[in-house]
Amino acid sequence: MTRYFLQLAYRGTAYHGWQRQPNGLSVQEVLETALSTILRQPIAIVGSGRTDAGVHAAEQFAHFETDAPLPIHLIRSINSMIPPDVAVYDCFPVRPDDHARFTAISRYYQYTISRRKDPFRDGLVYVFTLPLVVEHMNEAASRLLHHIDFESFSKVKTDVLTFNCQIERAYWEQQATGDVVFHIKANRFLHGMVRAIVGTLLAVGQGRLSVAEFDQIILARDRRKAGRAAPAQGLSLVEVGYPVEVFAAIKSEKTKE
Amino acid sequence: MTRYFLQLAYRGTAYHGWQRQPNGLSVQEVLETALSTILRQPIAIVGSGRTDAGVHAAEQFAHFETDAPLPIHLIRSINSMIPPDVAVYDCFPVRPDDHARFTAISRYYQYTISRRKDPFRDGLVYVFTLPLVVEHMNEAASRLLHHIDFESFSKVKTDVLTFNCQIERAYWEQQATGDVVFHIKANRFLHGMVRAIVGTLLAVGQGRLSVAEFDQIILARDRRKAGRAAPAQGLSLVEVGYPVEVFAAIKSEKTKE
Repeated sequence: MTRYFLQLAYRGTAYHGWQRQPNGLSVQEVLETALSTILRQPIAIVGSGRTDAGVHAAEQFAHFETDAPLPIHLIRSINSMIPPDVAVYDCFPVRPDDHARFTAISRYYQYTISRRKDPFRDGLVYVFTLPLVVEHMNEAASRLLHHIDFESFSKVKTDVLTFNCQIERAYWEQQATGDVVFHIKANRFLHGMVRAIVGTLLAVGQGRLSVAEFDQIILARDRRKAGRAAPAQGLSLVEVGYPVEVFAAIKSEKTKE
Repeated sequence: MTRYFLQLAYRGTAYHGWQRQPNGLSVQEVLETALSTILRQPIAIVGSGRTDAGVHAAEQFAHFETDAPLPIHLIRSINSMIPPDVAVYDCFPVRPDDHARFTAISRYYQYTISRRKDPFRDGLVYVFTLPLVVEHMNEAASRLLHHIDFESFSKVKTDVLTFNCQIERAYWEQQATGDVVFHIKANRFLHGMVRAIVGTLLAVGQGRLSVAEFDQIILARDRRKAGRAAPAQGLSLVEVGYPVEVFAAIKSEKTKE
């Protein structure tokens, strides 16, 4: 059996999230169906993490195992079998223990707010036209770097053992295009965490919450204290970090050719 | 009666083009319905030009006339009544003779080719992954500036009086993102012209036509000599030029406030 990593991207609008489920089409199911057809054996894939319904991924990784040799044009074959809103960009062998989820050391998300209606990005950004003080949102966002426990931004129904996350990046960027983009990177995220943080920071940006109150919300460890979750469509997973060794197998493989 | 210009944008995917027609929804119809409802009188609008089914406009202008006073939040009202794939950005009074189509002095189109499958721009770009020599496409494109009659790139069924167009810009841009974008600006375009030119230039880029042959195709004044039209989804109207006087009325109007 050889284990492979897939690098892929998807627009989440039409899917009930990444994770396979009985009541709606998932990105995982789309990929498993294509791979199973091409390799002529049932293939299960494991993603770096779940994304909710409507959430996008500009970069997602998943792993699968097979003893079948990969066809030469595997990536082209997969892309021609799956819908236009999912794309596979790479497939490479990894070490037997490399795991798309457990080996990942970081996740980086962006949340994009468009300040005006945009016919070309419907479903890809959150259109929010009320006044926002980005400076205040950034002051509050910087407070995230001083905390460890983010239970206040976690879905209440959850089976995680700890609410601890190491956030290493959290800031808003006022882009020249007019977009206001939130960047957040951490070793892990709780379920619903980014959208809850963004929703609460939007309250700060509108003057409905102060930076001190934002800090108090984090300390409260109570989801009810935080703001409403921002809509899914603005959110995109943009980078998953792995130790360099995960990619080392590619080089040795390519050297062999 | 006062005449107004509308500045707007649309994703053409879901529409049977700009122009109102019996057998399918058009952008014109969507806007006329919203304006007629808001102003409580039948409103007809005239666009700067037609775009085909599936073709987009990042900038389009249209004019309409009414004796009704415009509501304060007209633009917001229109945008809330029309679908997310059409957006109105401005509405301003013009002189009685200013005409969205006949007063326009230039049209600028872009045709975007993505070199890989892109889940976020399905329907917005033409995905073309075969090798292309952009240098050769640019050599051929520059030939367009040396000609006046473009009957070879016009739909055969047409009622125009002349096939003459003054092309002032025609080049391919290799973008850092990987996209290959065709830029073309002229005083006017014939029906189907940009897509026929792009399709023929793609044949040059693949080595199926030489630059000399491209030149011969223009001289032939025969649509059958040119290549197949490139798909609609890559094409977008990005700028319509008017004499500055058209916008002068805005200033005097705004001074009054």
